[in-house]
Amino acid sequence: MLSNITASFIIIGNEILSGRTQDKNLNYLAKILNNLGISLQETRIIPDIEAEIIATVNSLSKKYTYVFTSGGIGPTHDDITSLCIAKAFSDELIIHQEAKEILYKFYGPENVNEARMKMATLPSKAKLLNNPISSAPGFYLENVFVMAGIPKIFQAMVDCLVPILKVGSKIYNLELTISLTESVIAQDFANLQKQFPLVIMGSYPFDGGTSLVFRATDLDALKHTVALMKEKVLSINSQSIIKIDE
Amino acid sequence: MLSNITASFIIIGNEILSGRTQDKNLNYLAKILNNLGISLQETRIIPDIEAEIIATVNSLSKKYTYVFTSGGIGPTHDDITSLCIAKAFSDELIIHQEAKEILYKFYGPENVNEARMKMATLPSKAKLLNNPISSAPGFYLENVFVMAGIPKIFQAMVDCLVPILKVGSKIYNLELTISLTESVIAQDFANLQKQFPLVIMGSYPFDGGTSLVFRATDLDALKHTVALMKEKVLSINSQSIIKIDE
Repeated sequence: MLSNITASFIIIGNEILSGRTQDKNLNYLAKILNNLGISLQETRIIPDIEAEIIATVNSLSKKYTYVFTSGGIGPTHDDITSLCIAKAFSDELIIHQEAKEILYKFYGPENVNEARMKMATLPSKAKLLNNPISSAPGFYLENVFVMAGIPKIFQAMVDCLVPILKVGSKIYNLELTISLTESVIAQDFANLQKQFPLVIMGSYPFDGGTSLVFRATDLDALKHTVALMKEKVLSINSQSIIKIDE
Repeated sequence: MLSNITASFIIIGNEILSGRTQDKNLNYLAKILNNLGISLQETRIIPDIEAEIIATVNSLSKKYTYVFTSGGIGPTHDDITSLCIAKAFSDELIIHQEAKEILYKFYGPENVNEARMKMATLPSKAKLLNNPISSAPGFYLENVFVMAGIPKIFQAMVDCLVPILKVGSKIYNLELTISLTESVIAQDFANLQKQFPLVIMGSYPFDGGTSLVFRATDLDALKHTVALMKEKVLSINSQSIIKIDE
């Protein structure tokens, strides 16, 4: 693990598990956390089922510094995330005055029907995460950050919560892209991993070569490791470097 | 749950959790399972850490009819899935003769070095899943199906395992796309869900309207439910249907 500040992400949504919708939120969140030096250790995609959501939130909020969720905070009957978070923390749902005022201001009081008011019905201890796109806020409670599933709104909420998070040592990523197949460099790559256990090394083949990925919080150690691997690769074939981050 | 044949998917890969790579395998698998009447209940994305992989496989293989995995079966040191599956089932790794012959035939025996031979080093009880793209096979052991992370190879392996799986009642999906916002139809939609609990109904807003998704194994009940919701929507605004599956 590259940071002692850890995180997990819970994607709540039948539509992802049925194949209707391709998730785009994980990739956005993962990059942001990486830049903040927060180690995203796990992601779970679960259905809109109350018992599953509560059990998952309970388990992961104890295990990681932060838990992020997406989905299930809209006005329809299948939006049950706020209720589940309240239950997970033995809290109760209330009409959150600040959230209600935000909705009144955005829609006009006469347009906030019962369904819309559901979006201001939050755990009593919730603090709001602003939503500049469609007003209905996300929220956080203890170490759990609850956001919308719609990518544009999810992203706006993530941007809004970034200043609240503890920051770890930045995690640097360097890549060495080569025209050799994985099996040719596997032994040297494994030896290098043994020599530098604090640099996390991964190998990803593609048509025509291999991307060697190096990740670490120590930039000097990282650059040194990449340089050593570059030498090894060049010693096998002097024309085999396609691209290198240095 | 729409089927008593259930599944979970474990995506093994630091590259997904770091944001380097956008997963494409879940969406492919989800659609195939949906067509087979297999209910994908959960997906977990976990890092290349032995203890995490073993614990996750152990837990999910007891909970669901099938477990599918992607990633970590290549020739490099970060490819530890086969070892973890062996440990999860108290099996041992052996050189799998059939897999070895496949590699010999594809690469020529002189080109199968130690790293490549790792791709034929599998749990002793593994049965092979063919890989028409790059030969190195996936495998299955009890109810766990182990596949490559590269989408093209993953997809070929999934296509190869489909005939092995038990098939449930086909899960039908119908969508009603309307120009009304969620909050306007939320009450009627909730009432309909209460009336037809065997039809799973979800609401997904987009810029300019809402997609109402209906899923069930009983096509007649499904069509009836969509027709009732269509009537409700038309009674609110006769111009509000954008698209309807009938």
